[in-house]
Amino acid sequence: MRRTLLCSALFALTLGAAAPPSPPLAPGEIIAAAPASAWRPIAPDNLLLMDLVNGTHVAIELAPDFAPVHVANIRTLVRAGWFDGSAVVRVQDNYVVQWAGANEAKPLPASVVAHPPAEYDRPLAGLALRPLASPDAYAARVGHVEGWPVASDGGRAWLAHCYGMVGVGRDMPPDTGSGVELYGVIGQAPRHLDRNIALVGRIVSGIEALSALPRGTGDLGFYTDPAQRLGIRRTRIAADLPVAERPSYQVMRSDSPTFAAYVEARANRRDAFFVRPAQGVDLCNAPVPVRAQP
Amino acid sequence: MRRTLLCSALFALTLGAAAPPSPPLAPGEIIAAAPASAWRPIAPDNLLLMDLVNGTHVAIELAPDFAPVHVANIRTLVRAGWFDGSAVVRVQDNYVVQWAGANEAKPLPASVVAHPPAEYDRPLAGLALRPLASPDAYAARVGHVEGWPVASDGGRAWLAHCYGMVGVGRDMPPDTGSGVELYGVIGQAPRHLDRNIALVGRIVSGIEALSALPRGTGDLGFYTDPAQRLGIRRTRIAADLPVAERPSYQVMRSDSPTFAAYVEARANRRDAFFVRPAQGVDLCNAPVPVRAQP
Repeated sequence: MRRTLLCSALFALTLGAAAPPSPPLAPGEIIAAAPASAWRPIAPDNLLLMDLVNGTHVAIELAPDFAPVHVANIRTLVRAGWFDGSAVVRVQDNYVVQWAGANEAKPLPASVVAHPPAEYDRPLAGLALRPLASPDAYAARVGHVEGWPVASDGGRAWLAHCYGMVGVGRDMPPDTGSGVELYGVIGQAPRHLDRNIALVGRIVSGIEALSALPRGTGDLGFYTDPAQRLGIRRTRIAADLPVAERPSYQVMRSDSPTFAAYVEARANRRDAFFVRPAQGVDLCNAPVPVRAQP
Repeated sequence: MRRTLLCSALFALTLGAAAPPSPPLAPGEIIAAAPASAWRPIAPDNLLLMDLVNGTHVAIELAPDFAPVHVANIRTLVRAGWFDGSAVVRVQDNYVVQWAGANEAKPLPASVVAHPPAEYDRPLAGLALRPLASPDAYAARVGHVEGWPVASDGGRAWLAHCYGMVGVGRDMPPDTGSGVELYGVIGQAPRHLDRNIALVGRIVSGIEALSALPRGTGDLGFYTDPAQRLGIRRTRIAADLPVAERPSYQVMRSDSPTFAAYVEARANRRDAFFVRPAQGVDLCNAPVPVRAQP
């Protein structure tokens, strides 16, 4: 199976190359050469913008197809200004950065669902999963659905805790978290959290500023001194901004031929540096390309 | 297979528990309760200490069983003071931090092998691989050898690019790098580098300071302004220090029953937060515990 994939992809790449044959493209070159049709825009209603007091801008694509109640809560919280003035409170190395959290001085907006259902997974039916050929340590099937890393047991499907994914902090079950406390993955994919927490989106811009924050020295990486916290100036949903002021991003379509070539190149690096293609790629080591809209 | 592992480990944990039965231990609790016999010391000749000018102390265990010529080179470079005064030059988000590198003003010590053999893998024979049951996207077998994450095709075996692993920067093949330029993994395991670069060790202390450094804005995360570089004050091999001054660390023995319980608990979290054990664990999501010698 792997060998077949390898050869057919080589063939496909050769067809598109000028004579004399070009060297195989690196994943970054495939992204750079992607046609416009390989990209989908992020819907403005699904784009959460978070501005930190140090000038960092973070953009998060929300995933209402996987956690609709949690995502609706988060939109409501953003629109009520609930996150404004809160802070990054936890940075645990090789794990997560976490922000906001309970604020007793600030009551929840009335339309927030305080106890959402456990949107940890959903039916696979209705999702067009583009499967990866490589086996996975955590699930029978893994692949991508419209740019999202997804795992499945054949019946249910769920977002996978890859680098940059955003989830909803919660206390002990059956609590699922309302959405007032969010975290982003900044280390080796903590896939053991899959189906144990609601994932609600993915950081598409600005993660390198969050992942470089000083690690907290308290238990679980919480900052022990409130002065260490990094303030959140404001959050907004892009759809609420005038069109001309909206940042806009595009995600590579995971059902495009370009994405197939990209994944194949991630699995089988043949650019000049590599001496031995891996013949496989982990779900979280094939991050779906994102770019600012050109 | 997975179910059997699950039950036998539950049985083992139950045997050791007082009545009434305790809740299942979390991985951290298993580490905290590990007996002295579950730990091996890091040999002082394999412990590289790197002090940065900002006060950060980094400790790296070297892996001479996997890359003997490269490790010998690195010891020689350390002892000649070659790294002293060099710097961290590259921090690429979700990938690597890289330091030192060519210094034309400083000739290589005479005994450094300028062109080492490609120590990218070695025979599996002679290594006691403790296998993981979960499948891997990159190799037919994965597991641990004396605390190292190892992958194998049955004939050859190699260190895996997990978080914190240290490798030797190189140019294009057949160059393999002399050891003057090193990198540490600070993101999702870039396993596609396995067997393409010589891995020489693992950061056992201080990685949280390296992983929190500002990301470089140049190509591949290189710092574009030399002022952004973080200086290396000195490097030493612990064996060269008076015994009383040596920091010393212990690595959990990966052939110990404690490690087996730890891996099982990583694969099947049953502590109170979790509602659904994963029934699997990725090689790089089961990092071998390390502690300062008590």
